[in-house]
Amino acid sequence: MARWQPDARERLEKAALELFTEQGFAETTVPQITARAGLTTRTYFRHFADKREVLFAGEDEYPAKVARMVAEAPPDLTPMALIAHGLHTMATTAFEGQRARLKARQAVVQSDEGLRERELRKLSAMWEAIAEGFQTRGFDNLTATVAARIAVTAFNVAIERWLAAPDDQPLTGFVDETLKSLRAITAEPL
Amino acid sequence: MARWQPDARERLEKAALELFTEQGFAETTVPQITARAGLTTRTYFRHFADKREVLFAGEDEYPAKVARMVAEAPPDLTPMALIAHGLHTMATTAFEGQRARLKARQAVVQSDEGLRERELRKLSAMWEAIAEGFQTRGFDNLTATVAARIAVTAFNVAIERWLAAPDDQPLTGFVDETLKSLRAITAEPL
Repeated sequence: MARWQPDARERLEKAALELFTEQGFAETTVPQITARAGLTTRTYFRHFADKREVLFAGEDEYPAKVARMVAEAPPDLTPMALIAHGLHTMATTAFEGQRARLKARQAVVQSDEGLRERELRKLSAMWEAIAEGFQTRGFDNLTATVAARIAVTAFNVAIERWLAAPDDQPLTGFVDETLKSLRAITAEPL
Repeated sequence: MARWQPDARERLEKAALELFTEQGFAETTVPQITARAGLTTRTYFRHFADKREVLFAGEDEYPAKVARMVAEAPPDLTPMALIAHGLHTMATTAFEGQRARLKARQAVVQSDEGLRERELRKLSAMWEAIAEGFQTRGFDNLTATVAARIAVTAFNVAIERWLAAPDDQPLTGFVDETLKSLRAITAEPL
């Protein structure tokens, strides 16, 4: 009966986001999601631990991927250059072209306190992974920690501004303006 | 029977932290907390919505307090000077002298995923409030947002390093070294 569904994960994600948007996260059940996707609840739970996790699909792999990217970047880059370079790569490879879906997802996440908390956990997983990447490059713990927080914070601000903008402009532009603002603020006298 | 207990809140917080530390967060019940504090569960729920919230007591007032502090600071301060000044004030008025309690609390929070997520929500409430404070001072949205994130991130890193240090050194020293590192990293060429 259960045929192999190579795109099951994507179909479940799409169906879930549609239903969460149409009728609310709390009001949506896993059986409703699987019905819309034309799949079984058994298939659902093979891919996602619970109803919430369908909104955070694939994000478990991000931190390790980003940590590796930091660790393996050209050795002569300053932390700041590496951050700028890394955020541009992230923006173009994983975000550009998906603004509509990410906006819909953001609206769902913002609608529920538990989802907002879960979303924040991503930040913390990311900055821990990036700090590890910087430590692998030989930076001391403080520099690695601060550089990682700068990277995650700047990207987070850039994404928020990108999603809030009236039309779809390149995310890289928002990354640049955020880093520029960060550099201007921190350069001011104490 | 139920006498007025002016220190009920503090007693519940103390009893809860002791029990969470001794036997674990998941294994502790509200009746156990109230028994140790010599109070009723009714009193408990007058102060805290659930078992989790006893670890986050009083923190709801922080964001508004900090936003007001930012908005009302001397007008000639740069955002960076205001951040440094504000973090010093926070450190000395609300943190110094409480390292042992905060270390115990941190261990409990780290032990439970739900608590870790709840803890992160504090960060987001703080940076939103601080951004509002900066906007009240007339800064544009981007500067206000970035300055607020810098403040919260730097304080968060400083507290982590303060709690992880082998002995009790002033938190203000960790604030200064974190801001110094932040300024050094962001000043480097891209």
